[in-house]
Amino acid sequence: MRSRIHSQLLGIQNTPSFSAGKKFQLDDLIEAQQFDREILADIFEVAREMEKVEKNSPGSQVLKGYLMATLFYEPSTRTRLSFESAMKRLGGEVLTTENAREFSSAAKGETLEDTIRTVEGYSDIIVMRHFESGAAKRAASTAEVPVINAGDGPGQHPTQALLDVYTIDREIGKLDGIKVALVGDLANGRTVRSLAYLLAKYQDVKIYFVSPDVVKMKDDIKDYLTSKGVEWEESADLMEVASKCDVLYQTRIQRERFGERIDLYEEARGKYIVDHDVLNVMQNHAVVMHPLPRLDEITVDVDADPRAAYFRQAKNGLYIRMALLKLLLVGW
Amino acid sequence: MRSRIHSQLLGIQNTPSFSAGKKFQLDDLIEAQQFDREILADIFEVAREMEKVEKNSPGSQVLKGYLMATLFYEPSTRTRLSFESAMKRLGGEVLTTENAREFSSAAKGETLEDTIRTVEGYSDIIVMRHFESGAAKRAASTAEVPVINAGDGPGQHPTQALLDVYTIDREIGKLDGIKVALVGDLANGRTVRSLAYLLAKYQDVKIYFVSPDVVKMKDDIKDYLTSKGVEWEESADLMEVASKCDVLYQTRIQRERFGERIDLYEEARGKYIVDHDVLNVMQNHAVVMHPLPRLDEITVDVDADPRAAYFRQAKNGLYIRMALLKLLLVGW
Amino acid sequence: MRSRIHSQLLGIQNTPSFSAGKKFQLDDLIEAQQFDREILADIFEVAREMEKVEKNSPGSQVLKGYLMATLFYEPSTRTRLSFESAMKRLGGEVLTTENAREFSSAAKGETLEDTIRTVEGYSDIIVMRHFESGAAKRAASTAEVPVINAGDGPGQHPTQALLDVYTIDREIGKLDGIKVALVGDLANGRTVRSLAYLLAKYQDVKIYFVSPDVVKMKDDIKDYLTSKGVEWEESADLMEVASKCDVLYQTRIQRERFGERIDLYEEARGKYIVDHDVLNVMQNHAVVMHPLPRLDEITVDVDADPRAAYFRQAKNGLYIRMALLKLLLVGW
Repeated sequence: MRSRIHSQLLGIQNTPSFSAGKKFQLDDLIEAQQFDREILADIFEVAREMEKVEKNSPGSQVLKGYLMATLFYEPSTRTRLSFESAMKRLGGEVLTTENAREFSSAAKGETLEDTIRTVEGYSDIIVMRHFESGAAKRAASTAEVPVINAGDGPGQHPTQALLDVYTIDREIGKLDGIKVALVGDLANGRTVRSLAYLLAKYQDVKIYFVSPDVVKMKDDIKDYLTSKGVEWEESADLMEVASKCDVLYQTRIQRERFGERIDLYEEARGKYIVDHDVLNVMQNHAVVMHPLPRLDEITVDVDADPRAAYFRQAKNGLYIRMALLKLLLVGW
Repeated sequence: MRSRIHSQLLGIQNTPSFSAGKKFQLDDLIEAQQFDREILADIFEVAREMEKVEKNSPGSQVLKGYLMATLFYEPSTRTRLSFESAMKRLGGEVLTTENAREFSSAAKGETLEDTIRTVEGYSDIIVMRHFESGAAKRAASTAEVPVINAGDGPGQHPTQALLDVYTIDREIGKLDGIKVALVGDLANGRTVRSLAYLLAKYQDVKIYFVSPDVVKMKDDIKDYLTSKGVEWEESADLMEVASKCDVLYQTRIQRERFGERIDLYEEARGKYIVDHDVLNVMQNHAVVMHPLPRLDEITVDVDADPRAAYFRQAKNGLYIRMALLKLLLVGW
Repeated sequence: MRSRIHSQLLGIQNTPSFSAGKKFQLDDLIEAQQFDREILADIFEVAREMEKVEKNSPGSQVLKGYLMATLFYEPSTRTRLSFESAMKRLGGEVLTTENAREFSSAAKGETLEDTIRTVEGYSDIIVMRHFESGAAKRAASTAEVPVINAGDGPGQHPTQALLDVYTIDREIGKLDGIKVALVGDLANGRTVRSLAYLLAKYQDVKIYFVSPDVVKMKDDIKDYLTSKGVEWEESADLMEVASKCDVLYQTRIQRERFGERIDLYEEARGKYIVDHDVLNVMQNHAVVMHPLPRLDEITVDVDADPRAAYFRQAKNGLYIRMALLKLLLVGW
């Protein structure tokens, strides 16, 4: 959102029911760097309320009359459905563009800025997925309506980061003092990088990195953690780490990053599998998380264990997005 | 839907207006084998009520607050629009996935079960179209929300079967004692197979099969009809059959089933055309049906005749789907 | 819409709040030839009211219970979103088909007429985009619900024409006596042809044509203007024309029309650019318009000038479409 008193421009007068109308601290949601502990706690509090919104309750109408545009330049059906469900669960409406890369105008050479200025004329908030890092920031600096980054290429995916931290808080009951194992593709995973970044805001956090050599966590994140006083450790022993951590965060080895080197991919892929043996050494209160989709890096027999938190984690994405839409559109 | 007290899990408290809240007999709608005469009569009664739902009446808000996900792994715009219209005519909302085969997660190798467990977190009911026989059953055994099969490959398409039987009942006024001619591609047509199967539930039904040799009705259905005491007869004389039947159910010869053998397709295709001459020998109360789309197996000059029931039949699909959505989501 | 008392057929009884229920003069919106000065003035008056519709006001619910089907045989995301936003801003609902060319039925060879007869069973109004000239007229003569032409190939795009004239009226405050420069691709631009046609309905209008030789305005429009007594002039001097006109309507040179002749395209494309120098000679009350998307035929530094009206023009498309949907569905 450009800095401007946009509520006058939009002619918003009737703000719906349960909002007290106090403005949210953020105008847009673009990157994890926008968060501090206080904002995270505030968002999580609203997300908790969202878990209790009943069908046809006043809370379920808080965004009645509002229109969200989902402008997706690359497909991400899961993320799109989660945002659209969030908007509709709060009584709002949605304009969908599943494949904005073939957006007729974009195909004809229109700039992102021009597209945004047109789409903001039709909607009250824009949720954008783009293939280029930095695209969300450019959109936000053009738009007079709030913009939410639903992933911009190798860049940021801040709502995923939020739902991950929220899930840890919901499952473990705390964020200070937790031990988190990040497993799998740590080199290419936007998710685990953001999660490590956000965990550094909490006290006495310990992070374990468990990954095949070809996809190790990069130095920038390690240096950042060190600079923030976060203890971290690389390990090749998944069983040992599993027995000590509160959260085992598994990720998919991304085949698309290996190009022709299928052999390297196959080798990396089979190395650290979360199966029943891993579960057996985990603590009772610990949980397994995964950003989904999974292939076979978590075996199906793990699903039935109460410590398998990944589908609850996906569902938490709904509550986080409900909270953000509410906060950005009508405030507290 | 998995067997579980899911209403508690979903936190459904306020059931909307005209439902008395008595649970529907079925949890999911997967295959024609789920129906008996009583359930069919019950569904048809609700469909009749649906024909009378007025814009902005209380009845039109019976699904307010409910979200349906249309998860289509292959395009079927007609079926999708019919379901989405049904949901919206009852005040419900829709999450659309037009091409779930390219669903980002599915493309990355996610199982159907994982997709279902994610999507059910965002919606109250899943309408699924899939290219594999049995996919709907797998989805239903995973999901805790109701699943409706909107066609699974060469398998089932139970709402089409329902709307066909409903249309016969609405047009002819009875189901016992009727004479139905099934014409065209009887080998590959999922529609005619299901219809024959359901008609066997009624008394004194007579079925005529009229089809080119290469696409004759298969023995399994013939044997089934015989075992149920349904009289059936194969005929090559469309005019004679047309003069005797109550319903002439024409179907499209499916070119895609002939592969390279265009010659066989062309020969089969022109063999049994419903035109004005056929209409002329039909009884006054008889009707022509077709699951649509049609090519030229019914000539356009037939459309104006009141006995051309195929567009009314398509419209009946709306009422049947409204009834099913209402019954599965809020009960009687 | 076929001539029939269709409100009875649809069972519309409760017409929503602010409509007095007087029928709109038109049944469908197919081509610019349907408009006269009076109808244009009427539509513009309703569009002005639409600018004032507040979220959750009674006006915002005037189409509650109504369903619009967007049947797009070629993608036009901008136009689609504009119509869908218009419908939702008035409380209506939408069934979307983004790529009806791959509509499963159309792909199987179904006629447009059959598709329309099916889709009208699911919706109250059809907004259609097609790649063939005349398709909208065929649809309207089949349908019993209103049809709006959202562009049919090289044919008409009447809502674009309406929003252009509306924008001139809003920006300049009058239509009689205005001087309008049409710049760029005048040979292929459906937009400028329609605009010239509609401007001929007003008094003392002067039109300037400024275009590269390969894409000059065709004789049919020139002859039409002459026959209506509209003064027009071709000019190669953009600066001189800019200094005299009230409206400078720039258009994109359409590369797709040049085929292999990239050289001709490149030459035509750079010829008449609207930049700060052009702005400097324009009158204070004059405006720059563009149907969008633009490439570089208007430089980005023009955007900040209050005379840059093209994004306001895009927004006016929303109000015009709200007005048309309201008028066609519930009348005055």
